[in-house]
Amino acid sequence: MEEFRRQVNEKLRSSVDSVEPPRLREAMAYSLLADGKRIRPTLCLLAYQIFDTDVSVALPTACGLEMLHTASLIHDDLPAMDDDDFRRGSPSNHRVFGEGMALLAGDALLAYALEFILQNSDSLHPERLLSVMAKLIEVVGPSGLSGGQAIDLHSQGRDDVDPLTVEEMHIKKTGALIEASVVTGAILGGASKADIARLTTYARNLGLAYQIVDDILDETSSFEEFGKDVGQDRAAGKWTYPRLVGVEQARERVRGLITQAVAELDGFGERAAMLRWAAQVVHGRAAA
Amino acid sequence: MEEFRRQVNEKLRSSVDSVEPPRLREAMAYSLLADGKRIRPTLCLLAYQIFDTDVSVALPTACGLEMLHTASLIHDDLPAMDDDDFRRGSPSNHRVFGEGMALLAGDALLAYALEFILQNSDSLHPERLLSVMAKLIEVVGPSGLSGGQAIDLHSQGRDDVDPLTVEEMHIKKTGALIEASVVTGAILGGASKADIARLTTYARNLGLAYQIVDDILDETSSFEEFGKDVGQDRAAGKWTYPRLVGVEQARERVRGLITQAVAELDGFGERAAMLRWAAQVVHGRAAA
Repeated sequence: MEEFRRQVNEKLRSSVDSVEPPRLREAMAYSLLADGKRIRPTLCLLAYQIFDTDVSVALPTACGLEMLHTASLIHDDLPAMDDDDFRRGSPSNHRVFGEGMALLAGDALLAYALEFILQNSDSLHPERLLSVMAKLIEVVGPSGLSGGQAIDLHSQGRDDVDPLTVEEMHIKKTGALIEASVVTGAILGGASKADIARLTTYARNLGLAYQIVDDILDETSSFEEFGKDVGQDRAAGKWTYPRLVGVEQARERVRGLITQAVAELDGFGERAAMLRWAAQVVHGRAAA
Repeated sequence: MEEFRRQVNEKLRSSVDSVEPPRLREAMAYSLLADGKRIRPTLCLLAYQIFDTDVSVALPTACGLEMLHTASLIHDDLPAMDDDDFRRGSPSNHRVFGEGMALLAGDALLAYALEFILQNSDSLHPERLLSVMAKLIEVVGPSGLSGGQAIDLHSQGRDDVDPLTVEEMHIKKTGALIEASVVTGAILGGASKADIARLTTYARNLGLAYQIVDDILDETSSFEEFGKDVGQDRAAGKWTYPRLVGVEQARERVRGLITQAVAELDGFGERAAMLRWAAQVVHGRAAA
């Protein structure tokens, strides 16, 4: 895992070197190269590895996933959205570069994620590359990140929000990109349709569990542990899963989702050991 | 021309019907379906028409171009950017839906433009579709819209800005998408590399001329004629071409660019009559 993270960080560092204009590059690099867990790239490489060994094939897409994730974080933190002053333990992008440049850095990273993949995938078959692009594009659009954020924004301060709506929001806001991380890894590795379907279910459950854990930590942890302000969601009148059903029942839901996720990996045997482990890590965060 | 505009408007109207969640769809549709000249889709269809007659092949991309354009307008109008209250004669997106939803509507339209093209291009050869996608993705990224906006933002209020920087900004901010409109039309029509190169030069000159005309109109026209607030650029301390070299010399530059643009069309004979006419329309706006 640590080796994957190192490879991703190295590739990310050089990925924006040639971007112009300089001020935009600085704003993009500031958030992209901030210390992060690189969960999405790692999941992509782990899924790829089930089917093929040459991870360099999946590395550009792994980096693109981190760029998409970073773009959504920059936009989420803006005053018009969550208005977060900190991210990954440092001042958020707009606190350093101003709101306008942060908006543009987000836009630029959304596009550059796809551009970077296209520029570094000469060896890929066009149809496989198109499938990867289609999956990533879907994740950014209304059925993914922007749709999830819109549900989030529209439900704030309302009192008629139910757990299903909160789950739909989570699936789009967080789950979609986690799912795409695993699925693009599998596509690049040459997985069969049946295998892609099983990994999709694994990732969907994992992604939802991951976001519920994040919400639990927002309720229960400290700034030092979490790297960003805590208790913000409640203060903003946001609907989160633990707020709706309580922390204990939210933990129970995480447990159920992780069990379902791991069950999908049975057919892959030892090749999926790391994906099994990744699910346990998410589970462990909730219990901590 | 009018027939193309009608076809584009009809396709655009149905394009977002199935988008969820509803509030995001409303915000996307509000700006996308506002009355617009549909210049970019029209240029795409006109370029396509030089090489092939079945315009339905290029219609999804034509609509995607308008979605990308609309996305950039929504983000440009935000308070953190140009802070424009009006667009196309109506209140700008964030004035109706709030800043957060406008931000998301822009993000969603950026992605949905590509998604819509992918979903409606089954008949296209994967490699041709990939070329179109690559061109459009480049236009949104640092070497296109977001890069041009970043130069714009970074040069405001500074006194060491030269005409070359302003031109670079225009080429990225406006020229890149106009160029992509013509070039994707040509790619979809099956143009040769040499023909694509000539149309690229045509479109690059036309795009720069178009933006200089826009800046001239910002100096010389009224709200009623322009459909948005005028004199904003100067008030915001923005560097525009007419502000740097004067309105008369800016008009002279437009004339030169249009002449160069039209010269590139010589080899296409009558098939490029409409593209020639489009260049004259841009020229005419400057003189008005």
